[in-house]
Amino acid sequence: MRQSQLFLPTLREVPADADVKSHQMLLRAGFIRQNAAGIYSFLPLGKKVLHKIENIVREEMNRAGSQEMMMPALQLADLWQESGRWYSYGPELMRLKDRHERDFALGATHEEVITSIIRDEVKSYKKLPLNLYQIQTKFRDEKRPRFGLLRGREFIMKDAYSFHDKQESLDETYEIMKDAYSAIFSRCGLNFRAVLADSGSIGGKDNHEFMVLSEIGEDLIAYSTDSDFAANIEMAPVLLQESASSENPKEIEKVDTKDAKTIEELSAFLNTPASKIIKSLLYLADGQPVLVLVRGDHEVNEIKLKNVLSAEEVSLASEEDAVKWLNTKPGSIGPVSVVKDVKIIADQAIPLMVNSVCGANEEGYHYINVNAENDFDIHQTEDLRFVVEGDRSPDGKGTIVFAKGIEVGHVFKLGKVYSEPMKASYLDENGKNQIMTMGCYGIGVSRTLAAVAEENNDEKGLIWPLALSPFDIHLIAVNSKNAEQLSLSEELYEKLKNEGYDCLYDDRNERAGVKFTDSDLIGVPIRVMVGKKAGEGIVEVKIRKNGELLEVPVSELSEVLKREYEKLA
Amino acid sequence: MRQSQLFLPTLREVPADADVKSHQMLLRAGFIRQNAAGIYSFLPLGKKVLHKIENIVREEMNRAGSQEMMMPALQLADLWQESGRWYSYGPELMRLKDRHERDFALGATHEEVITSIIRDEVKSYKKLPLNLYQIQTKFRDEKRPRFGLLRGREFIMKDAYSFHDKQESLDETYEIMKDAYSAIFSRCGLNFRAVLADSGSIGGKDNHEFMVLSEIGEDLIAYSTDSDFAANIEMAPVLLQESASSENPKEIEKVDTKDAKTIEELSAFLNTPASKIIKSLLYLADGQPVLVLVRGDHEVNEIKLKNVLSAEEVSLASEEDAVKWLNTKPGSIGPVSVVKDVKIIADQAIPLMVNSVCGANEEGYHYINVNAENDFDIHQTEDLRFVVEGDRSPDGKGTIVFAKGIEVGHVFKLGKVYSEPMKASYLDENGKNQIMTMGCYGIGVSRTLAAVAEENNDEKGLIWPLALSPFDIHLIAVNSKNAEQLSLSEELYEKLKNEGYDCLYDDRNERAGVKFTDSDLIGVPIRVMVGKKAGEGIVEVKIRKNGELLEVPVSELSEVLKREYEKLA
Repeated sequence: MRQSQLFLPTLREVPADADVKSHQMLLRAGFIRQNAAGIYSFLPLGKKVLHKIENIVREEMNRAGSQEMMMPALQLADLWQESGRWYSYGPELMRLKDRHERDFALGATHEEVITSIIRDEVKSYKKLPLNLYQIQTKFRDEKRPRFGLLRGREFIMKDAYSFHDKQESLDETYEIMKDAYSAIFSRCGLNFRAVLADSGSIGGKDNHEFMVLSEIGEDLIAYSTDSDFAANIEMAPVLLQESASSENPKEIEKVDTKDAKTIEELSAFLNTPASKIIKSLLYLADGQPVLVLVRGDHEVNEIKLKNVLSAEEVSLASEEDAVKWLNTKPGSIGPVSVVKDVKIIADQAIPLMVNSVCGANEEGYHYINVNAENDFDIHQTEDLRFVVEGDRSPDGKGTIVFAKGIEVGHVFKLGKVYSEPMKASYLDENGKNQIMTMGCYGIGVSRTLAAVAEENNDEKGLIWPLALSPFDIHLIAVNSKNAEQLSLSEELYEKLKNEGYDCLYDDRNERAGVKFTDSDLIGVPIRVMVGKKAGEGIVEVKIRKNGELLEVPVSELSEVLKREYEKLA
Repeated sequence: MRQSQLFLPTLREVPADADVKSHQMLLRAGFIRQNAAGIYSFLPLGKKVLHKIENIVREEMNRAGSQEMMMPALQLADLWQESGRWYSYGPELMRLKDRHERDFALGATHEEVITSIIRDEVKSYKKLPLNLYQIQTKFRDEKRPRFGLLRGREFIMKDAYSFHDKQESLDETYEIMKDAYSAIFSRCGLNFRAVLADSGSIGGKDNHEFMVLSEIGEDLIAYSTDSDFAANIEMAPVLLQESASSENPKEIEKVDTKDAKTIEELSAFLNTPASKIIKSLLYLADGQPVLVLVRGDHEVNEIKLKNVLSAEEVSLASEEDAVKWLNTKPGSIGPVSVVKDVKIIADQAIPLMVNSVCGANEEGYHYINVNAENDFDIHQTEDLRFVVEGDRSPDGKGTIVFAKGIEVGHVFKLGKVYSEPMKASYLDENGKNQIMTMGCYGIGVSRTLAAVAEENNDEKGLIWPLALSPFDIHLIAVNSKNAEQLSLSEELYEKLKNEGYDCLYDDRNERAGVKFTDSDLIGVPIRVMVGKKAGEGIVEVKIRKNGELLEVPVSELSEVLKREYEKLA
């Protein structure tokens, strides 16, 4: 494509309202333009990259046995009423009436539509499993759209839905989808993790988010340095880190700790590491008192606590409650001599502690040389704390580190959440009516584009991975007014096209500086510059990623490009 | 793809509410399903065909120098208010409010959005011309959606917009787009015409609709048997068909014609062909009387009349007006002895008539042997009539025939209709501010799919042209329970895939009759059946289009398929 004919409006200035790199760069490099808050147009270069991502998604989904289809954006409200989401989805669901005053939703997601199609068409276990996907524009009226394409109100998503007779069939498809997603994001050149996520109110155990590791991520994830373990920080299990101490238990002793109340103050006052102090917190779990013990250098993970207690709700007890159940105020709470009505639940690290410190349930006093069993009871031992950086990975391989993540994909075992209320049933081998089991699998296609841009840029502009670059080569006639340079450029343009490269050719009557600045901004991986040595048949090849610059005789250009492409691939 | 795994719900019955062949067949063959009135899902086979059409459109648009982009469906009402269409578009434009109560339109078309982008980004004649397109879902709330995909409320369109500094530049792009459209519809295997259309209220001279000739078309078009001339029947010009008669003019004579009033009655009463009678009709053009003369076997085209008179409005005069201006009632009107206040305008055929018949402006009487100049004046001679079948084509090549057409594409010189109110301007060579000139070019992508289905079917089902078929080959294991047949089928499935064919393989445990019926319904152009002669290494190849059946040894299959494909291409 000749750049003189390309619609590619680049900007020199950083747009004022673009708050993250990807947004700034995609605007500056002329890939996108905003039409309204959270609503964007993809200009020709943006559309080309989008197309490449879509093709990767399509290839991997097809390979995984998913079948492409296309559902409408306009969805009858009736379906959303059947699933109950017409009422529960809130203002994110855009709604409208047609000319006959019928209510419609604008597709934010398609569980209802696909379930209605499948329940009408599939009646027998023989037709299951089915895995169907579409790549389509979605609408969600975000309260605060931001970060450009990362959180928009109209965006492109790949959404897939699977239908099964048996749980094992869903489990199998779920793993296939996870593999397909890994293939997709790998091909997009992203540093990502499949992160175990909280299933929230929907329930169901298996639920992974595909997270691109990124400074600007809105979620905190814990992952292993040496394996593919990754989990949302709330979900990361803790592997018991240490074996029991060889120290001999001493006699318990009450000491006056003055005003020292926090772990920090106590650690300083007693000259003891936080890891030797028992942090005792009184919770109310569905109204019942529970004394929770974790090591002083750890934090209670209330999601874990809630799960192990099978409680609807857990919350820290008030000062009043502490006085009521333990006869003391928070700051001096401890597990020694606690009445039987208060359940004591300890993190798995607690039984291993020897001669540790804890509150004496008496203001201003703590015990030292406290030992479980000898000095206090534990009713239940569990993994109760948040993972911390430096922990061993729960799968035993490597060390836990933290990172922020941008969610680009999500796989979810829906179970019967939609098929049950919408009555999607089939006849099993025995002719018995059964409710289908479902999975759903989403990829933010336009968000993936932004995530790639976010992770691949420098101060000069974008740096596209080969598989997603809008062009293979950026050919630049350095001085188009120079006949020698222009003629060699034209010749090379034809030659490169014939060799199968998708070539952007800067044939504009612009200064070299303008051309180079634009080229850096656009970020095509390899640049060929036809400049002053055109007469000698020499051009320059520049690698966008590392700035490497090669002088190449025209006769060797094909070979050099081939080699450099192999390096980048 | 294994048919046992494919989501392909075929129907034996003709759906009750499907009124045209394409709609019936696409439903029965499992290509589409309706989700709401005028709103459809494309099931996997439908999506595959859609994808093929989109790729043809994309290839030809790119080849023609148009650049693909992607604009949003959600459009700020502000833009539609600028163009004025927020008020004029009517209930076909779907509207909604976002959570902040801002008005949006759901994209029915994108003139406003693209014009707003270009006016912001393009400031100089140096950046013009530009031609941009997108393939995208559009929303139009049709009052009576019908004919399945042919007139839906949510549909897929390719819309392109071009921006120019000069009219000649638009003219050039317009011709390029016309050629690209011809290439696209040819590749889709459609029998179409580029039809000169009425520009309606928008104005502008050049405006062509691409019409697929079809029984179920809603428009009547006139086209040449031997050239590419085609026009909407209202727009078709008439080439003067005959030379002057060699008959000698006789003396005018008034005759008593009793009750004969219509051309038919008069022709019978006087035993004269209608072509020798002058049909005289009194019109009021913006209130002024105009006597319009056409041959008795012709019909006045009021659009032409209005245009040649440059009138705002023309209408047939009432009986009262006839009496007022001609002293007689309709039925006896004629051009002889008409007062000067009444303008006489004649179709170009009138001056060539010799010794013809016309009304005498006296009830019950007509003149015979009437001749222009001798007996009456003509103030203006024009092409005033509707074209009829059998006329010579206006380009002199071939004969006019009529057909109904389905509009699948539209190219339109917009001029400054949008750029003027929306102030899309640029600086010309002299630094002077000028308004851009625009063109727009649409293709109904999902409608094209339906048009192809409408024109390619028989009583058994669809018959896809090679370029659009969802699969290249339909391989059928006639009896999957027969080990010999199954093993040869499996072997051929692998072989055909390796040879690059996209192969649908019916591996289902179904009766042969079910498989053949489904296969006919789906309409893949070539079917390979592995049946009773599998043991002898012989299969059957069936051509869907003509039912031709070949017995082919497996060793020769590749060769035979290659040959049959060449025949079909």
